[in-house]
Amino acid sequence: MKTYAEMSREELSEEITSLKKEYHRFQTMELHLDMSRGKPCQEQLDLSMHMMDVLDSSSDLTCEEGIDCRNYGALTGIEEARELLGDMMENNPKDIIIFGNSSLNVMYDTISHAYTHGIMGNMPWCKLDKVKFLCPVPGYDRHFAITEYFGIEMIPVPMTPNGPDMDQVEKLVAEDASVKGIWCVPKYSNPQGYSYSDETVRRFARLKPAASDFRIFWDNAYGVHHLYDDRQDYLIEILAECKRAGNPDLVYKFSSTSKITFPGSGIAALATSPNNMDDIRSQLKRQTIGHDKVNQLRHVRFFKDIHGLTEHMRRHADILRPKFEMVEDTLEKQLGGLGIGTWTKPLGGYFIHFESLPGCAKSIVARAKKAGVVMTGAGATWPYGKDPQDSSIRIAPTYPSSQDLAVASELFALCVKLVSAEKLLEEK
Amino acid sequence: MKTYAEMSREELSEEITSLKKEYHRFQTMELHLDMSRGKPCQEQLDLSMHMMDVLDSSSDLTCEEGIDCRNYGALTGIEEARELLGDMMENNPKDIIIFGNSSLNVMYDTISHAYTHGIMGNMPWCKLDKVKFLCPVPGYDRHFAITEYFGIEMIPVPMTPNGPDMDQVEKLVAEDASVKGIWCVPKYSNPQGYSYSDETVRRFARLKPAASDFRIFWDNAYGVHHLYDDRQDYLIEILAECKRAGNPDLVYKFSSTSKITFPGSGIAALATSPNNMDDIRSQLKRQTIGHDKVNQLRHVRFFKDIHGLTEHMRRHADILRPKFEMVEDTLEKQLGGLGIGTWTKPLGGYFIHFESLPGCAKSIVARAKKAGVVMTGAGATWPYGKDPQDSSIRIAPTYPSSQDLAVASELFALCVKLVSAEKLLEEK
Repeated sequence: MKTYAEMSREELSEEITSLKKEYHRFQTMELHLDMSRGKPCQEQLDLSMHMMDVLDSSSDLTCEEGIDCRNYGALTGIEEARELLGDMMENNPKDIIIFGNSSLNVMYDTISHAYTHGIMGNMPWCKLDKVKFLCPVPGYDRHFAITEYFGIEMIPVPMTPNGPDMDQVEKLVAEDASVKGIWCVPKYSNPQGYSYSDETVRRFARLKPAASDFRIFWDNAYGVHHLYDDRQDYLIEILAECKRAGNPDLVYKFSSTSKITFPGSGIAALATSPNNMDDIRSQLKRQTIGHDKVNQLRHVRFFKDIHGLTEHMRRHADILRPKFEMVEDTLEKQLGGLGIGTWTKPLGGYFIHFESLPGCAKSIVARAKKAGVVMTGAGATWPYGKDPQDSSIRIAPTYPSSQDLAVASELFALCVKLVSAEKLLEEK
Repeated sequence: MKTYAEMSREELSEEITSLKKEYHRFQTMELHLDMSRGKPCQEQLDLSMHMMDVLDSSSDLTCEEGIDCRNYGALTGIEEARELLGDMMENNPKDIIIFGNSSLNVMYDTISHAYTHGIMGNMPWCKLDKVKFLCPVPGYDRHFAITEYFGIEMIPVPMTPNGPDMDQVEKLVAEDASVKGIWCVPKYSNPQGYSYSDETVRRFARLKPAASDFRIFWDNAYGVHHLYDDRQDYLIEILAECKRAGNPDLVYKFSSTSKITFPGSGIAALATSPNNMDDIRSQLKRQTIGHDKVNQLRHVRFFKDIHGLTEHMRRHADILRPKFEMVEDTLEKQLGGLGIGTWTKPLGGYFIHFESLPGCAKSIVARAKKAGVVMTGAGATWPYGKDPQDSSIRIAPTYPSSQDLAVASELFALCVKLVSAEKLLEEK
């Protein structure tokens, strides 16, 4: 079998003719499919429907500390919720604040707090001429949207299967006091599904930032989102590692139950050092009287404990695993050996990352869209939406039904072939 | 009957001796009562317990627009919730955004947004040398805490039974472009329970601010919180009035169900003009993917419509009315004719305001505390906690049981008598 690059002009032309015929066949199907966002599918949501039964009008809505969860108060969350999420996040419950339904909101507010009031007594970022963030690429578009909104200059740092290029991270952080943070999705990363190696986490904990208000924004969104029982990535717990390294205040760690129970109605959490906690509490107490404690209680009574939550995640995996495998199999079957793209095969998380030939990503996504399959916008995985190689495509296999996903991934592979062949022909 | 001021030194001394005896009797009771915060009592919370039954695992959690409320999305809230809160707030549902569980959080975020990004293209407040807010006094301490936190200079404006002194408001707003906002609790105000007159609202809508980014922060926290069926305050709807006056963008209006269902698990809302809405949406879409829609749906299915909500508020009133009347009766019985204080008799809301002789408020609150009754800190109703007359005391009668409230208000009245008598004796 020849790769596309090895084909002659004539062979490529012939291939394109045949691919176009196939593409038109898809167009006549008038598809409306969406592989763009990391949304759980309906079957996944149904797994948590009994959470709607654990509290009713006969329930005692008093938490273990004796607080009536219906009323005001408990700024940092109820004890049993901090305990459950502590077990999930591998953190001490006393290092955890429980928030509302969105960890993205917590991240936004953390940046906003640094911007308006500064971190732990440091100069507010709004008073500085220049604030920079390191952005491992490809990465999560909503992270980049926050930093861009605050006028923070984003510096891309390449991702590897072991995490960000730590030589670059260490150098940039040590040399430039205007570098104030880095966005990390350390486990089953968005979009590649990579997990940071032990060495990477250790090096993160031992960073020597020029800025005393440099923080790692550790978005552990997929910490318990495994696809397999027998093959799972492990991640060194970053707060503990920072403490051991003598850098206890270096990290804000975010998590939530959004992709565990209901994305719209989960609970979010932040784990950090006591110093950072005091700093955040001083802001939080002005911002609210407390977050939704009834929903916290609902989550705890539903899962009971971390074992319950782990079993629940196993059921998510049973739904998602076949979807990931179907996409991977289709890509292998359609694109294997053609030399026109590589893709990741993650053990967890919500995405597969596809790396096309340079200069092809935008066209592939546009072709798919024209035939009725929406992908995440090409470039979205890069700061400012600018992928210099135009080669990064995020595939989100979770939301469509298996049937739709089968069609969508076939079409996607077809678009990869068509665009790549045209590109190669053009260059011959 | 003599007023205290008319008493001779001897009469005052005698009175003090007898009051002290009475005070010691209270001290031996070892009370632990709390009249400090505007919290609903348990019986009020119980009124909403059936809200815990309206959704269960057999419910269809799809809203009218066909969105699965469990999943991500619906940034500005679900249609039926905007409709219910629209009826409650007397606003067009399309002018409403539904948020999370805390309207205080929405107010904080609105100020924070103005500070970091500016309002509708105006200079961000963080770039200005000076930002000022008008603060009708006495007012709500948590409002003042937000503006103080952002370094905003607070200018007290006297309250009257018809609302803030509008001559002063008009003058300050027109003359000084650094005046960017005013805090208002327009109906059953915190703490006096005053409602703004028609003239006041009309004058608000016709303000001619020097600053194009001046906004009225209209916290209509007690819009439907009447105590009586037959005597209720009415308030001209401010958004409509601003529109009529040609000032459509002048106001942010806040509300929530915190004191309707559960303070910890209600839904909050903001109503404002389309221009302000676009401005806020541009920030909100970076901050979150959406608020808790399941809880929005729960509220709608519980109340069904505005009539259901109105009937529900009537039941709240049945619980609160006797408490307010008990405090008012006790004050009348104990203090009537003594010339040592005046108090408001609101038709709704959560507070009674007590105006002591100048220089007595702090001592009265301290005395009450020493005997086991916690009041809102004297001075809390003023910016920076500084009440220049030391005469403003907020009474919150809702939370304690009737039995506790009876004891607490007797003790409070006693402390007023004791402190006033001592003060007058000192001055003789």
